[in-house]
Amino acid sequence: MFNRQIDEDDSLILHTDLYEINMMYTYFKKGISEKKAVFEVFYRQEPFGNGFAVFAGLEHIVQYLQDLRFRNSDLEFLRETQDYDDDFIDYLKNLKLKLTVRSMEEGQLVFANEPIVQIEGPLAQCQLVETAVLNIVNFQTLLATKAARIKLAVGNDGIMEFGTRRAQETDAALWGTRAAYIGGFDATSNVRASKLFGIPASGTHAHALVQAFGNEYEAFKAYAETHKDCVFLVDTYDTVRSGVPTAIKVAKEMGDKINFLGVRIDSGDMAYISKQVRKQLDDAGFKDAKIFASNDLDEKTITNLKMQGAKIDVWGIGTKFITAFDQPALGAVYKLVAIENENGEWQDSLKISSNAIKISTPGKKQVWRICANHDRKNEGDWIARDTEDPTNFKALFMFHQQYTYINKVVTDFTAIPLLKPIFVEGKYVDHPRSLAETKEFCAKNLDALWDEYKRSLNPQEYPVDLSQDLYESKIDLINEIRTKIRNRGLH
Amino acid sequence: MFNRQIDEDDSLILHTDLYEINMMYTYFKKGISEKKAVFEVFYRQEPFGNGFAVFAGLEHIVQYLQDLRFRNSDLEFLRETQDYDDDFIDYLKNLKLKLTVRSMEEGQLVFANEPIVQIEGPLAQCQLVETAVLNIVNFQTLLATKAARIKLAVGNDGIMEFGTRRAQETDAALWGTRAAYIGGFDATSNVRASKLFGIPASGTHAHALVQAFGNEYEAFKAYAETHKDCVFLVDTYDTVRSGVPTAIKVAKEMGDKINFLGVRIDSGDMAYISKQVRKQLDDAGFKDAKIFASNDLDEKTITNLKMQGAKIDVWGIGTKFITAFDQPALGAVYKLVAIENENGEWQDSLKISSNAIKISTPGKKQVWRICANHDRKNEGDWIARDTEDPTNFKALFMFHQQYTYINKVVTDFTAIPLLKPIFVEGKYVDHPRSLAETKEFCAKNLDALWDEYKRSLNPQEYPVDLSQDLYESKIDLINEIRTKIRNRGLH
Repeated sequence: MFNRQIDEDDSLILHTDLYEINMMYTYFKKGISEKKAVFEVFYRQEPFGNGFAVFAGLEHIVQYLQDLRFRNSDLEFLRETQDYDDDFIDYLKNLKLKLTVRSMEEGQLVFANEPIVQIEGPLAQCQLVETAVLNIVNFQTLLATKAARIKLAVGNDGIMEFGTRRAQETDAALWGTRAAYIGGFDATSNVRASKLFGIPASGTHAHALVQAFGNEYEAFKAYAETHKDCVFLVDTYDTVRSGVPTAIKVAKEMGDKINFLGVRIDSGDMAYISKQVRKQLDDAGFKDAKIFASNDLDEKTITNLKMQGAKIDVWGIGTKFITAFDQPALGAVYKLVAIENENGEWQDSLKISSNAIKISTPGKKQVWRICANHDRKNEGDWIARDTEDPTNFKALFMFHQQYTYINKVVTDFTAIPLLKPIFVEGKYVDHPRSLAETKEFCAKNLDALWDEYKRSLNPQEYPVDLSQDLYESKIDLINEIRTKIRNRGLH
Repeated sequence: MFNRQIDEDDSLILHTDLYEINMMYTYFKKGISEKKAVFEVFYRQEPFGNGFAVFAGLEHIVQYLQDLRFRNSDLEFLRETQDYDDDFIDYLKNLKLKLTVRSMEEGQLVFANEPIVQIEGPLAQCQLVETAVLNIVNFQTLLATKAARIKLAVGNDGIMEFGTRRAQETDAALWGTRAAYIGGFDATSNVRASKLFGIPASGTHAHALVQAFGNEYEAFKAYAETHKDCVFLVDTYDTVRSGVPTAIKVAKEMGDKINFLGVRIDSGDMAYISKQVRKQLDDAGFKDAKIFASNDLDEKTITNLKMQGAKIDVWGIGTKFITAFDQPALGAVYKLVAIENENGEWQDSLKISSNAIKISTPGKKQVWRICANHDRKNEGDWIARDTEDPTNFKALFMFHQQYTYINKVVTDFTAIPLLKPIFVEGKYVDHPRSLAETKEFCAKNLDALWDEYKRSLNPQEYPVDLSQDLYESKIDLINEIRTKIRNRGLH
């Protein structure tokens, strides 16, 4: 069925755009494949109109980079289908990871126009990994951000990720539910994710159980006789008239033999029905039984249901989360910001655009989070050359990247560098947190952010400012290129 | 970092919702896990307001089912984290695929409310595979449908899939670009997809090449000296003033040494710029050089650009396709339609809902495509019990599922059964087409559909009708259940 089987020889190394390998070939044949370069990943706008994003994806990037080697079938495939000389195929065969990777930590809050991953090393290798790095960061950061928005909407209620069946293929479900957990979800329905990542798994039964036993009483009873923890799905026929009364009947019959955790509603008018159900459960003496709801929920419907006084305790979120339904892509890009010149010195590099926001900021950078000492809240991020160090500054002048008249002087602050080394010249050097710690880290980071930046609608813009040096270099370089274009000096 | 490594022991068998395994446990302990059941996959509404969908996903489902066995680490994980008795763990350990699977063929046109995959076999096994089957069918059918919409918009122009970096993780890119090819795309940028599926790979260079060489002339020249086929990306600095003149200069200098295929534009006003560029290329004598465009395109922007007379020959489609941006999920569901009773006879099963459209149609079915003999166009689909056979009917009475007064009598027709056996009691029995044949099959199926169903906006509703027997059984069963609920007979 396949031209070639997906077999042991398959890996993600060819999970790249053909143009990356075509560029590698040109670099190789022109003798610049090993020239040092720095590329940075950044996005230009927060997704969902949010005021921040939650970085995720590093774990998968690490796996990908650690396995980065061409297999024989890859080389054979390229030889057969592309016009590459044998010396290039040999070069690929011998390719060993030499990249230095600096990255935000997973669960870190990140903002538009700041580098979130930085890849440094041989030009050809930097080029090879672009596609997969963007693919992974774009999706997982998008989902962790969506999760944080939903977490902010539910407050202290429980949230469970139920989206596997609507995810965009299997990886999206797996890594998406991990991002959910980082961003604030409590559990997943996906058993493989639970096994691989240690996320608590959750789920009881579907409508099919009721259909298989022919009626709700038999089904709930059978479930209760085979499981200690019971949440009954009550909307197979009629929630209020049939499902809930049957659940209550079985719960009473079983008594202490089960933990009657509650009932799940999956259809109908959630606000109205949940209030009815709450009353039914309370009247029957099950005041601690919880109401679980699932039905195309997201942060907007949750906020609305809460305003309507819906009696929902635990939210099961599927489609709208796992596909990031209202904005299913984050547009992070990967830009060359510096490259060695013939003398082995770093030279800034820039891509110009007729659209001002699309002009990248040249130079190899570090991102510093500026935290006020008196209240431990963030003042903003300060992006500087990697050679600048604000930790000993008494005062820091921070100004807006486009509107420089928006500025402030910050004193009595702590500056924390956010890009951390993950690989140094191909060697993995990170000591990552556990997933549970990453989740806590994310929650702590959200605590340090003023509420104004966390509003789900029209949040305040968080300051992401450039150092004077970076700003001036950028303006100078733009002017230099513009002048060359005017003089037709570029070609 | 992981609780358990993603290693050789990892597979998709735990890529399921926990509730599936919890239900399996109840079935097992209650002695009905081997009871025969039939589940059917269908969706309730075409995505994107389209008039049809293109079925895809079967290839991945086959892979998944062929590898369906619990590994030791899976069993150990379930034993540690769930309260299952050892006999159930043993049962899982010995589980061997016994399912009979009937399915639409990939590239087949499918419609709302008709079964597109049918899973028959031991109740517990049917339950286990629900989540993965839906996950795969939902995504790939969504994407193949989106691809067909884009193909209908571009007509005979070329279309290339460029979306990997914006896909929802790596599987979505891989299987999504395969769905693109089935639905009408010509090529992919994803090298792994090209290797695994034999899809033509496409791509030349990015802005980084220009930045790496410092200017467009050096970059284009270097590329041209190392590749025969050249498409130059011309918008790194200024398309009309710098990029295109440089591309022309290099193309003239290289002469016959390269195939100057054309230039690619990735930003700016595509309608205006493409006309300028066309004139520049024509004036320079490159009338055959093509203009490639890529920049957040989809069927709507393409239709608009064509109306504005944009001079674009080949379309590179990324984000908006690979994420199905305007509707990133298809809502296909998996419903129990029939189950053995105690006497081993099939019994219809139904899930009721307060929402009429959510009531499933009971009974094990076949879908017949009714094709008029005089013009080879489709009259509609006729869904019947698998025991009904319309091939010898002289006339067929077809009526709307909800509005039965919309009906017609069809004569002189050919009836083609669409659900084909893929597995019979666990044994793979299919002889699938190659991917290229599947792509042709899809195109041929679109030819047999009236244009009125293929409009991208407000298409006519394609008739998907029930046999008299199915319709009456459904109404009878609904009434029976409603009566029981009224009499509180269900609990």
